[in-house]
Amino acid sequence: MTISIVGTGNVATHLGRRLMEQGVSVSQIIGRSEIKAAYLADALGATHATFSANIDPSVDALILAVSDAAIPSVGKQLSSVFQDTVVVHTSGTISSKALQPYFKHFGTLYPLQTFSLNAFPDFNKIPVFFNGSSIFDAAFIRQLAERISPTVYEIGDDDRMVLHLAGVFVNNFTNHLYKIAADIVQQKGLPFEVLLPLIEETVLKIKNNSPAQMQTGPARRGDNITIEKHLSYLTEHIPQYDLIYKILSININPDLTLNKP
Amino acid sequence: MTISIVGTGNVATHLGRRLMEQGVSVSQIIGRSEIKAAYLADALGATHATFSANIDPSVDALILAVSDAAIPSVGKQLSSVFQDTVVVHTSGTISSKALQPYFKHFGTLYPLQTFSLNAFPDFNKIPVFFNGSSIFDAAFIRQLAERISPTVYEIGDDDRMVLHLAGVFVNNFTNHLYKIAADIVQQKGLPFEVLLPLIEETVLKIKNNSPAQMQTGPARRGDNITIEKHLSYLTEHIPQYDLIYKILSININPDLTLNKP
Repeated sequence: MTISIVGTGNVATHLGRRLMEQGVSVSQIIGRSEIKAAYLADALGATHATFSANIDPSVDALILAVSDAAIPSVGKQLSSVFQDTVVVHTSGTISSKALQPYFKHFGTLYPLQTFSLNAFPDFNKIPVFFNGSSIFDAAFIRQLAERISPTVYEIGDDDRMVLHLAGVFVNNFTNHLYKIAADIVQQKGLPFEVLLPLIEETVLKIKNNSPAQMQTGPARRGDNITIEKHLSYLTEHIPQYDLIYKILSININPDLTLNKP
Repeated sequence: MTISIVGTGNVATHLGRRLMEQGVSVSQIIGRSEIKAAYLADALGATHATFSANIDPSVDALILAVSDAAIPSVGKQLSSVFQDTVVVHTSGTISSKALQPYFKHFGTLYPLQTFSLNAFPDFNKIPVFFNGSSIFDAAFIRQLAERISPTVYEIGDDDRMVLHLAGVFVNNFTNHLYKIAADIVQQKGLPFEVLLPLIEETVLKIKNNSPAQMQTGPARRGDNITIEKHLSYLTEHIPQYDLIYKILSININPDLTLNKP
């Protein structure tokens, strides 16, 4: 199986590296920036191309690891070259049908993970979701997905968007709660690191039990005295977070008798 | 150093076990329920007592590992017996001064962690916060804290409450976000486990970088198209969570042009 990758960011880098390690031949990295494309291509033992020059049209699959907004313009620019290639994008929210105007064989390949440049994720633990524009394309994309991870799911476009939404809660929103907590302890001169063991234990507990079962704390037990202390503190010292505290507490325990916001 | 513990719950169990392992002599477990006190005492090689019988008054320190609400009544019942003992409670939100009516030497001992019965936490990584009613009591309680963990901080009552507040964000509220995400994926027939690698990676990323630096996602990048898709889905299918999504998104990026709730 021979593939090329469009993009030079975190998803392109980590997917490219994984596929290379799994014995997939990475032919080209295609990028707007020739320098960036050359840099990543070099790391993967591939050649590089820009949208206007040197593109290898003979690959089995093309992975568009670009931003959501760039998908249509990239599709348009590469349409004529890849009519016999299976083209997938890696977006959580964009429909695979966004590729229909440009390609005959298309689909999606969505690893549910947050990628950053310096962290090497363990793909053996990352679920990869895919779909394809025909059962033949889907079967081919499944093979590609299975080279990336042992855990693959075929999933429709709408369901992938829902999965991405769940990802926003556990990744982006959770990270924001960490940021709020960092602001709170740092106001008191304490390092954020004092919270790390608690953060890690919170994750450990939901590995074997549902989060609903593991819920504890003042809201869960209806401890209004503590909740009022916390809200007074927030309102006085760091008021941008008191609404979040209220809404999450009431959502955890709708029987709480707070002044609803 | 000889101590006794009041309480038979998760905090009493794990603190008792840790202190025993660290060579502190645990004399007694004191509980309302004689059966529960006897059970924990047996595990720790200690004797047991109830509030009305068999109490050993000769210990150096007494740890009240009881609920916030029980602190005054426990203090009242044990006041006459422990006038020469340093008495600490383990609450994040109750002032050490709650013990002043009952004891001459008092303070707090607050391990910042969530304890559950079946998970054995690594105390070497848990920060323990303490204070004492005099510099002598504080010095003594510090020794006790240092038997529990290498990371100890002396902290005032008000600051401990603020620390607990930060703990609510990273533990209780984060767990609730996990619960919301579980509801979302399970509505689609997917197991919660597909989210675990993303949850773990989110934690890994803030071990070496501040959460503020690590923030990504549709709110952060002002991706209104994705945000509106997510909100439409929530409003239609699982509306109890759309307000949380809105408020967290706007809090992450105040420049978002959503219809503010």
